[in-house]
Amino acid sequence: MELFDVIAARHSYRGAYLPEPVPHSDLQRIMEAGLAAPSGCNKQTTLLTAVETPELIDKIFEIMELPFCQTAPALICVTTKRIIAYKDGWGRERSYQVQDYAAAIENMLLAITALGYASCWIEGHITDADEQDKQIAALLEIPADERAVCILPVGRPADAMNAVKKQPFSARARFR
Amino acid sequence: MELFDVIAARHSYRGAYLPEPVPHSDLQRIMEAGLAAPSGCNKQTTLLTAVETPELIDKIFEIMELPFCQTAPALICVTTKRIIAYKDGWGRERSYQVQDYAAAIENMLLAITALGYASCWIEGHITDADEQDKQIAALLEIPADERAVCILPVGRPADAMNAVKKQPFSARARFR
Repeated sequence: MELFDVIAARHSYRGAYLPEPVPHSDLQRIMEAGLAAPSGCNKQTTLLTAVETPELIDKIFEIMELPFCQTAPALICVTTKRIIAYKDGWGRERSYQVQDYAAAIENMLLAITALGYASCWIEGHITDADEQDKQIAALLEIPADERAVCILPVGRPADAMNAVKKQPFSARARFR
Repeated sequence: MELFDVIAARHSYRGAYLPEPVPHSDLQRIMEAGLAAPSGCNKQTTLLTAVETPELIDKIFEIMELPFCQTAPALICVTTKRIIAYKDGWGRERSYQVQDYAAAIENMLLAITALGYASCWIEGHITDADEQDKQIAALLEIPADERAVCILPVGRPADAMNAVKKQPFSARARFR
Protein backbone atom coordinates (compact mmCIF):
# COMPACT_ATOMS: atom_id res chain seq x y z
CA MET A 1 0.00 0.00 0.00
CA GLU A 2 1.32 3.45 -0.93
CA LEU A 3 2.49 5.61 2.01
CA PHE A 4 0.07 8.53 1.59
CA ASP A 5 -2.89 6.12 1.21
CA VAL A 6 -1.84 4.34 4.40
CA ILE A 7 -1.56 7.63 6.31
CA ALA A 8 -5.07 8.62 5.14
CA ALA A 9 -6.53 5.19 5.95
CA ARG A 10 -5.12 4.93 9.50
CA HIS A 11 -7.74 5.58 12.18
CA SER A 12 -8.09 4.65 15.84
CA TYR A 13 -10.39 1.61 15.85
CA ARG A 14 -12.55 0.81 18.88
CA GLY A 15 -14.92 -1.74 17.31
CA ALA A 16 -15.00 -5.55 17.44
CA TYR A 17 -12.39 -7.79 15.78
CA LEU A 18 -12.93 -10.89 13.64
CA PRO A 19 -11.81 -14.12 15.39
CA GLU A 20 -8.94 -14.75 12.95
CA PRO A 21 -5.44 -15.29 14.34
CA VAL A 22 -2.76 -12.84 13.19
CA PRO A 23 0.15 -14.77 11.57
CA HIS A 24 3.39 -14.68 13.54
CA SER A 25 5.15 -13.32 10.42
CA ASP A 26 2.78 -10.32 10.29
CA LEU A 27 3.45 -9.48 13.94
CA GLN A 28 7.16 -9.69 13.20
CA ARG A 29 6.79 -7.38 10.19
CA ILE A 30 4.81 -4.84 12.25
CA MET A 31 7.46 -4.88 15.01
CA GLU A 32 10.28 -4.54 12.47
CA ALA A 33 8.52 -1.42 11.15
CA GLY A 34 8.35 -0.06 14.71
CA LEU A 35 12.01 -0.72 15.44
CA ALA A 36 13.01 0.99 12.16
CA ALA A 37 11.80 4.34 13.56
CA PRO A 38 14.53 6.81 14.56
CA SER A 39 15.53 7.34 18.20
CA GLY A 40 17.24 10.32 19.84
CA CYS A 41 21.03 9.84 19.55
CA ASN A 42 20.23 6.30 18.29
CA LYS A 43 19.68 5.13 21.88
CA GLN A 44 17.01 2.60 20.76
CA THR A 45 15.04 3.00 23.99
CA THR A 46 11.92 1.23 22.67
CA LEU A 47 11.29 -2.52 23.08
CA LEU A 48 8.35 -4.58 21.87
CA THR A 49 6.52 -7.68 23.03
CA ALA A 50 3.98 -9.29 20.71
CA VAL A 51 1.37 -11.34 22.58
CA GLU A 52 -0.14 -14.29 20.70
CA THR A 53 -1.19 -16.60 23.56
CA PRO A 54 -4.98 -16.26 24.01
CA GLU A 55 -4.83 -16.65 27.81
CA LEU A 56 -2.28 -13.83 28.14
CA ILE A 57 -4.30 -11.58 25.81
CA ASP A 58 -7.45 -12.20 27.89
CA LYS A 59 -5.58 -11.38 31.12
CA ILE A 60 -4.21 -8.14 29.69
CA PHE A 61 -7.66 -7.01 28.61
CA GLU A 62 -8.95 -7.97 32.09
CA ILE A 63 -6.26 -5.75 33.68
CA MET A 64 -7.07 -2.88 31.34
CA GLU A 65 -10.87 -3.06 31.85
CA LEU A 66 -11.40 -1.51 28.43
CA PRO A 67 -14.85 -0.93 27.01
CA PHE A 68 -13.39 -1.81 23.58
CA CYS A 69 -10.69 -3.88 21.83
CA GLN A 70 -11.17 -6.98 24.05
CA THR A 71 -11.84 -9.16 21.00
CA ALA A 72 -8.45 -8.44 19.38
CA PRO A 73 -6.72 -11.76 18.53
CA ALA A 74 -3.22 -10.34 19.13
CA LEU A 75 -1.56 -7.32 20.67
CA ILE A 76 1.79 -5.60 20.93
CA CYS A 77 3.00 -4.22 24.26
CA VAL A 78 5.39 -1.27 23.93
CA THR A 79 8.00 -0.87 26.66
CA THR A 80 10.63 1.81 27.15
CA LYS A 81 14.00 2.09 28.88
CA ARG A 82 15.17 5.41 30.30
CA ILE A 83 18.53 5.87 28.59
CA ILE A 84 20.15 9.30 28.87
CA ALA A 85 21.07 10.74 25.47
CA TYR A 86 23.26 13.53 26.91
CA LYS A 87 23.36 16.31 29.51
CA ASP A 88 22.48 19.84 28.38
CA GLY A 89 24.15 23.14 29.34
CA TRP A 90 22.24 23.18 32.65
CA GLY A 91 23.49 19.68 33.48
CA ARG A 92 19.96 18.42 32.87
CA GLU A 93 19.74 14.80 31.68
CA ARG A 94 17.95 14.53 28.36
CA SER A 95 16.22 11.31 27.39
CA TYR A 96 14.12 11.05 24.25
CA GLN A 97 12.36 7.87 25.27
CA VAL A 98 8.82 9.28 24.83
CA GLN A 99 9.59 10.65 21.37
CA ASP A 100 11.30 7.35 20.52
CA TYR A 101 8.39 5.09 21.44
CA ALA A 102 5.82 7.43 19.88
CA ALA A 103 7.65 7.32 16.53
CA ALA A 104 7.86 3.51 16.79
CA ILE A 105 4.13 3.31 17.58
CA GLU A 106 3.24 5.50 14.60
CA ASN A 107 5.31 3.26 12.29
CA MET A 108 3.51 0.21 13.70
CA LEU A 109 0.05 1.78 13.29
CA LEU A 110 0.89 2.45 9.63
CA ALA A 111 2.21 -1.11 9.14
CA ILE A 112 -0.93 -2.53 10.80
CA THR A 113 -3.10 -0.46 8.43
CA ALA A 114 -1.06 -1.46 5.35
CA LEU A 115 -1.50 -5.16 6.21
CA GLY A 116 -5.29 -4.76 6.49
CA TYR A 117 -5.52 -4.84 10.28
CA ALA A 118 -6.93 -2.28 12.71
CA SER A 119 -5.57 -0.96 16.00
CA CYS A 120 -5.78 1.83 18.54
CA TRP A 121 -2.99 3.58 20.47
CA ILE A 122 -3.93 2.70 24.07
CA GLU A 123 -1.66 4.50 26.50
CA GLY A 124 -3.51 6.72 28.95
CA HIS A 125 -4.69 4.42 31.70
CA ILE A 126 -1.70 2.10 31.49
CA THR A 127 0.58 4.72 33.04
CA ASP A 128 -2.08 6.42 35.19
CA ALA A 129 -2.80 6.07 38.89
CA ASP A 130 -4.22 2.57 38.32
CA GLU A 131 -0.66 1.43 37.47
CA GLN A 132 -1.78 -1.20 34.99
CA ASP A 133 1.76 -1.06 33.59
CA LYS A 134 3.13 -2.97 36.59
CA GLN A 135 0.53 -5.73 36.30
CA ILE A 136 1.11 -6.04 32.54
CA ALA A 137 4.89 -6.11 32.98
CA ALA A 138 4.63 -8.88 35.61
CA LEU A 139 2.32 -10.94 33.39
CA LEU A 140 4.57 -10.63 30.33
CA GLU A 141 7.83 -11.03 32.32
CA ILE A 142 9.14 -7.70 31.11
CA PRO A 143 12.69 -6.94 32.42
CA ALA A 144 12.74 -4.63 35.46
CA ASP A 145 14.52 -1.78 33.63
CA GLU A 146 11.65 -1.39 31.14
CA ARG A 147 8.28 0.29 31.62
CA ALA A 148 5.14 -0.75 29.75
CA VAL A 149 3.55 2.35 28.22
CA CYS A 150 1.23 1.28 25.41
CA ILE A 151 -0.86 -1.61 24.13
CA LEU A 152 -1.67 -1.90 20.43
CA PRO A 153 -4.41 -4.44 19.68
CA VAL A 154 -4.00 -6.11 16.26
CA GLY A 155 -6.70 -7.87 14.23
CA ARG A 156 -9.09 -7.69 11.31
CA PRO A 157 -11.84 -5.15 12.03
CA ALA A 158 -15.42 -6.51 12.11
CA ASP A 159 -16.98 -3.03 11.95
CA ALA A 160 -16.55 0.08 9.84
CA MET A 161 -13.65 2.43 10.55
CA ASN A 162 -14.61 5.94 11.67
CA ALA A 163 -12.38 8.97 11.26
CA VAL A 164 -12.31 11.56 14.05
CA LYS A 165 -13.08 15.15 13.15
CA LYS A 166 -9.97 17.32 12.94
CA GLN A 167 -9.37 21.03 12.60
CA PRO A 168 -8.81 22.27 9.04
CA PHE A 169 -5.23 22.43 7.70
CA SER A 170 -5.13 26.23 7.92
CA ALA A 171 -5.83 26.15 11.67
CA ARG A 172 -2.73 24.04 12.38
CA ALA A 173 -0.26 24.86 9.60
CA ARG A 174 1.33 28.04 8.24
CA PHE A 175 3.92 29.13 5.74
CA ARG A 176 6.63 31.74 6.35
CA MET B 1 6.24 4.58 -2.74
CA GLU B 2 5.10 1.55 -0.78
CA LEU B 3 4.95 1.98 3.03
CA PHE B 4 7.45 -0.72 4.01
CA ASP B 5 9.95 0.53 1.41
CA VAL B 6 9.60 4.07 2.76
CA ILE B 7 10.17 2.90 6.34
CA ALA B 8 13.32 1.03 5.24
CA ALA B 9 14.61 3.99 3.19
CA ARG B 10 14.16 6.65 5.92
CA HIS B 11 17.43 7.65 7.54
CA SER B 12 18.62 10.72 9.42
CA TYR B 13 20.53 12.76 6.84
CA ARG B 14 23.31 15.14 7.90
CA GLY B 15 24.91 15.78 4.50
CA ALA B 16 24.63 18.69 2.06
CA TYR B 17 21.49 19.56 0.10
CA LEU B 18 21.12 20.41 -3.59
CA PRO B 19 20.20 24.07 -4.19
CA GLU B 20 16.72 23.24 -5.59
CA PRO B 21 13.69 24.90 -4.03
CA VAL B 22 11.05 22.59 -2.54
CA PRO B 23 7.65 23.26 -4.19
CA HIS B 24 5.05 24.80 -1.88
CA SER B 25 2.70 21.91 -2.76
CA ASP B 26 5.22 19.34 -1.49
CA LEU B 27 5.62 21.20 1.82
CA GLN B 28 1.84 21.25 2.12
CA ARG B 29 1.65 17.51 1.42
CA ILE B 30 4.34 16.76 4.03
CA MET B 31 2.52 18.86 6.64
CA GLU B 32 -0.82 17.21 5.80
CA ALA B 33 0.83 13.84 6.45
CA GLY B 34 2.05 15.15 9.82
CA LEU B 35 -1.33 16.49 10.85
CA ALA B 36 -2.96 13.16 9.91
CA ALA B 37 -1.11 11.46 12.79
CA PRO B 38 -3.21 10.54 15.82
CA SER B 39 -3.17 12.64 19.01
CA GLY B 40 -4.10 11.65 22.56
CA CYS B 41 -7.85 12.21 23.08
CA ASN B 42 -7.76 13.93 19.65
CA LYS B 43 -6.42 17.13 21.27
CA GLN B 44 -4.40 18.00 18.12
CA THR B 45 -1.63 19.63 20.14
CA THR B 46 0.85 19.78 17.23
CA LEU B 47 1.18 22.79 14.90
CA LEU B 48 3.48 23.23 11.93
CA THR B 49 5.23 26.13 10.23
CA ALA B 50 6.90 25.55 6.86
CA VAL B 51 9.69 28.05 6.17
CA GLU B 52 10.35 28.86 2.50
CA THR B 53 11.87 32.35 2.74
CA PRO B 54 15.66 32.01 2.29
CA GLU B 55 16.46 34.84 4.76
CA LEU B 56 14.38 33.18 7.50
CA ILE B 57 15.94 29.78 6.81
CA ASP B 58 19.44 31.30 7.06
CA LYS B 59 18.57 32.99 10.36
CA ILE B 60 17.21 29.76 11.84
CA PHE B 61 20.36 27.86 10.92
CA GLU B 62 22.40 30.73 12.43
CA ILE B 63 20.47 30.40 15.70
CA MET B 64 20.93 26.64 15.72
CA GLU B 65 24.69 26.70 14.98
CA LEU B 66 24.46 23.25 13.44
CA PRO B 67 27.47 21.52 11.93
CA PHE B 68 25.08 20.11 9.29
CA CYS B 69 21.84 20.76 7.38
CA GLN B 70 22.56 24.49 6.79
CA THR B 71 22.18 24.04 3.04
CA ALA B 72 18.58 22.80 3.25
CA PRO B 73 16.38 24.90 0.91
CA ALA B 74 13.30 24.58 3.17
CA LEU B 75 12.40 23.49 6.69
CA ILE B 76 9.43 22.72 8.88
CA CYS B 77 9.28 24.00 12.45
CA VAL B 78 7.19 21.81 14.78
CA THR B 79 5.44 23.56 17.66
CA THR B 80 3.31 22.15 20.46
CA LYS B 81 0.56 23.42 22.75
CA ARG B 82 0.14 21.99 26.23
CA ILE B 83 -3.47 20.85 26.20
CA ILE B 84 -4.61 18.63 29.07
CA ALA B 85 -6.24 15.42 27.86
CA TYR B 86 -7.71 14.48 31.29
CA LYS B 87 -6.82 14.11 34.99
CA ASP B 88 -5.94 10.65 36.24
CA GLY B 89 -6.95 8.98 39.53
CA TRP B 90 -4.26 10.93 41.42
CA GLY B 91 -5.59 14.22 40.03
CA ARG B 92 -2.49 14.43 37.86
CA GLU B 93 -2.95 16.30 34.58
CA ARG B 94 -2.10 14.17 31.57
CA SER B 95 -1.03 15.76 28.32
CA TYR B 96 0.13 13.69 25.38
CA GLN B 97 1.78 16.56 23.55
CA VAL B 98 5.21 14.86 23.24
CA GLN B 99 3.71 11.63 21.90
CA ASP B 100 1.51 13.72 19.57
CA TYR B 101 4.31 15.73 17.99
CA ALA B 102 6.61 12.69 17.73
CA ALA B 103 3.96 10.77 15.77
CA ALA B 104 3.44 13.80 13.51
CA ILE B 105 7.23 14.10 12.96
CA GLU B 106 7.51 10.41 12.05
CA ASN B 107 4.70 10.78 9.48
CA MET B 108 6.49 13.82 8.01
CA LEU B 109 9.86 12.01 7.86
CA LEU B 110 8.17 9.20 5.93
CA ALA B 111 6.41 11.67 3.60
CA ILE B 112 9.71 13.51 3.02
CA THR B 113 11.38 10.18 2.13
CA ALA B 114 8.52 9.11 -0.18
CA LEU B 115 8.80 12.40 -2.10
CA GLY B 116 12.56 11.90 -2.63
CA TYR B 117 13.76 14.43 -0.06
CA ALA B 118 15.99 13.96 2.97
CA SER B 119 15.69 15.28 6.52
CA CYS B 120 16.84 14.84 10.10
CA TRP B 121 14.83 15.07 13.34
CA ILE B 122 16.59 17.99 15.07
CA GLU B 123 15.22 18.46 18.56
CA GLY B 124 17.86 18.23 21.27
CA HIS B 125 19.47 21.63 21.39
CA ILE B 126 16.30 23.53 20.50
CA THR B 127 14.79 22.81 23.91
CA ASP B 128 18.06 22.69 25.84
CA ALA B 129 19.70 25.30 28.04
CA ASP B 130 20.56 27.40 24.97
CA GLU B 131 16.79 28.08 24.55
CA GLN B 132 16.99 28.29 20.78
CA ASP B 133 13.22 27.62 20.81
CA LYS B 134 12.51 31.16 22.03
CA GLN B 135 14.62 32.78 19.32
CA ILE B 136 13.09 30.60 16.62
CA ALA B 137 9.55 31.32 17.88
CA ALA B 138 10.21 35.08 17.85
CA LEU B 139 11.63 34.95 14.33
CA LEU B 140 8.71 32.93 12.95
CA GLU B 141 6.06 34.85 14.94
CA ILE B 142 4.82 31.69 16.62
CA PRO B 143 1.85 32.35 18.97
CA ALA B 144 2.81 32.62 22.65
CA ASP B 145 0.91 29.47 23.69
CA GLU B 146 3.05 27.27 21.44
CA ARG B 147 6.58 25.99 22.00
CA ALA B 148 9.02 25.22 19.18
CA VAL B 149 10.44 21.73 19.71
CA CYS B 150 11.84 20.46 16.43
CA ILE B 151 13.22 21.57 13.07
CA LEU B 152 13.00 19.29 10.05
CA PRO B 153 15.19 20.41 7.13
CA VAL B 154 13.73 19.47 3.73
CA GLY B 155 15.60 19.16 0.43
CA ARG B 156 17.16 16.86 -2.13
CA PRO B 157 20.26 15.16 -0.68
CA ALA B 158 23.56 15.86 -2.44
CA ASP B 159 25.37 13.02 -0.67
CA ALA B 160 24.70 9.34 -0.02
CA MET B 161 22.36 8.36 2.80
CA ASN B 162 23.92 6.35 5.61
CA ALA B 163 21.99 4.04 7.89
CA VAL B 164 22.91 3.95 11.59
CA LYS B 165 23.74 0.59 13.09
CA LYS B 166 20.94 -0.85 15.21
CA GLN B 167 20.65 -3.79 17.54
CA PRO B 168 19.30 -7.00 15.99
CA PHE B 169 15.52 -7.63 16.08
CA SER B 170 15.87 -10.33 18.75
CA ALA B 171 17.52 -7.86 21.17
CA ARG B 172 14.50 -5.51 21.11
CA ALA B 173 11.49 -7.69 20.33
CA ARG B 174 9.94 -10.81 21.86
CA PHE B 175 6.89 -13.00 21.49
CA ARG B 176 4.72 -14.30 24.33
